[in-house]
Amino acid sequence: MEKADNKPMFSKVALIGLGLIGSSLSHVMRREGLAGTISGAARSQATLKRAAELGLAGELTQDAGAAVEDADLVFLNVPVGAMGAVAKAIGPRLKKGAIVTDVGSVKAAVIRDVAPHIPEGAHFIPGHPVAGTEQSGPDSGFAELFENRWCILTPLEGSDEAAVKKLEAFWKAVGSNVDFMDPEHHDLVLGITSHLPHLIAYNIVTTAADLEEILGKEIIKYSAGGFRDFTRLAASDPTMWRDVFLNNREAVLELLGRFSEDLSALQRAIRWGDGEKLFDLFSRSRKVRREIIDAGQDTDAPNFGRK
Amino acid sequence: MEKADNKPMFSKVALIGLGLIGSSLSHVMRREGLAGTISGAARSQATLKRAAELGLAGELTQDAGAAVEDADLVFLNVPVGAMGAVAKAIGPRLKKGAIVTDVGSVKAAVIRDVAPHIPEGAHFIPGHPVAGTEQSGPDSGFAELFENRWCILTPLEGSDEAAVKKLEAFWKAVGSNVDFMDPEHHDLVLGITSHLPHLIAYNIVTTAADLEEILGKEIIKYSAGGFRDFTRLAASDPTMWRDVFLNNREAVLELLGRFSEDLSALQRAIRWGDGEKLFDLFSRSRKVRREIIDAGQDTDAPNFGRK
Repeated sequence: MEKADNKPMFSKVALIGLGLIGSSLSHVMRREGLAGTISGAARSQATLKRAAELGLAGELTQDAGAAVEDADLVFLNVPVGAMGAVAKAIGPRLKKGAIVTDVGSVKAAVIRDVAPHIPEGAHFIPGHPVAGTEQSGPDSGFAELFENRWCILTPLEGSDEAAVKKLEAFWKAVGSNVDFMDPEHHDLVLGITSHLPHLIAYNIVTTAADLEEILGKEIIKYSAGGFRDFTRLAASDPTMWRDVFLNNREAVLELLGRFSEDLSALQRAIRWGDGEKLFDLFSRSRKVRREIIDAGQDTDAPNFGRK
Repeated sequence: MEKADNKPMFSKVALIGLGLIGSSLSHVMRREGLAGTISGAARSQATLKRAAELGLAGELTQDAGAAVEDADLVFLNVPVGAMGAVAKAIGPRLKKGAIVTDVGSVKAAVIRDVAPHIPEGAHFIPGHPVAGTEQSGPDSGFAELFENRWCILTPLEGSDEAAVKKLEAFWKAVGSNVDFMDPEHHDLVLGITSHLPHLIAYNIVTTAADLEEILGKEIIKYSAGGFRDFTRLAASDPTMWRDVFLNNREAVLELLGRFSEDLSALQRAIRWGDGEKLFDLFSRSRKVRREIIDAGQDTDAPNFGRK
């Protein structure tokens, strides 16, 4: 697992999908010398052309099946809704002993769609690096994306232990901490820490944009009052997020129910002028941010340190 | 209005309240030489002690009335719910021709509470610098807070034109752009760009914190998935925000109604698997962020440029 002998951790790594995550994986693998060669696959010619200019992979193709040939490690970096089709395309061409993993934000649905297509002898180990930015495409990647972030692995029952250890070592080598979870638990935890926040952000931007017809450019002008914070998440890739909500439906609907209940209680406190209740709720929220900063997951600079 | 003659714009400026806005005003006035002398008032001895150590004002007192004596310009930098009491205390001690302004996030309610206490001969010109951070207290201020931000003035009918021009010049001198608005329009615009975002942020942190009992520290650990963005707004001063919601009740309730309707439509699209609708909504949101960045109201660096 160590690079003490100067041999790369994997002889060949295939990146299926060359957006934010795929291109970041390429950058960090090349920086750390983790892969002998890198192959890359993408659906669009424009992405492949840009990937070639950026030097993201030695071998670039529209054919995911061709990209995985002889690969020891295969990353599926495509929207959750596309995982099944990609798995079907690469399944027959995987080499014996190959590790297949994904970076999808939903785990139960990905396992449902991908696992049936992975042949015996190859090891499917689902994963999710909890890292990202609001940007997408082959130009958006950078080597530090995974640093000090958590990567969650949700191995299937009976997973090959050596393969799991090897994938864990890979994520540690790119700077991440690694956690293990049940897929269903992952989907609930990420539902509240990631999926619900994105949905709420998309929703408030929609509400504001509909008002914009009344208020002209004012919503843009005065966005520093707080609104702009939401627009970052709401600028994320629409295809990726459509697929997340369609594929983590149960958890998201359950969390949305709780959110709406809590919001009704707040609304009632405002309507009836219950200042004490508002003050108590608001005081409690402050503590949560402190914990996130103490855990090294955000900056304590005011305004995120924005200029 | 100009400082060409090297005389400060105002001989004496009184800062009633020395939190984020009050202390920032002190910093920038001293940097730009806008005030001959600065007096400051705060309720707590701890704040006054810290203000003295930081050199925020030459004269510091718990008595707001004493602080405004001989002042040409008076800033009310207290929570919206405290404005009326402060106005009552300073009214009789204002010098003839003094300009009184405030920095409250709500305008109609502040006018209702403050205007009756301002004697004839003094000029009350309500204002609101749309600038802030999640931090509070005398240590949180900095001279650049108002730079490239908008300050909204909502002069009353029959306001003294020279006084309004002088206050406008002050805000420009600290780096702000100045806009004029009706108080009611201000409260609606800020309702959507600031008050509703804060309320939603407080609410989602509450929903998550209640789940935390189930999920332990996981919500903190995986907050980089999106949740952490909300915690910044939700770390803002609880007293200030309680007062905002109690004093901009009608606008906030109206906007909350729209937000909840939109959220129900999204929820329905998720339940019924309407991917096209989700994709369309999410695509539209992306555009709004671009406009905010183009208007110079946010950074285009990924993740707000956070490390």
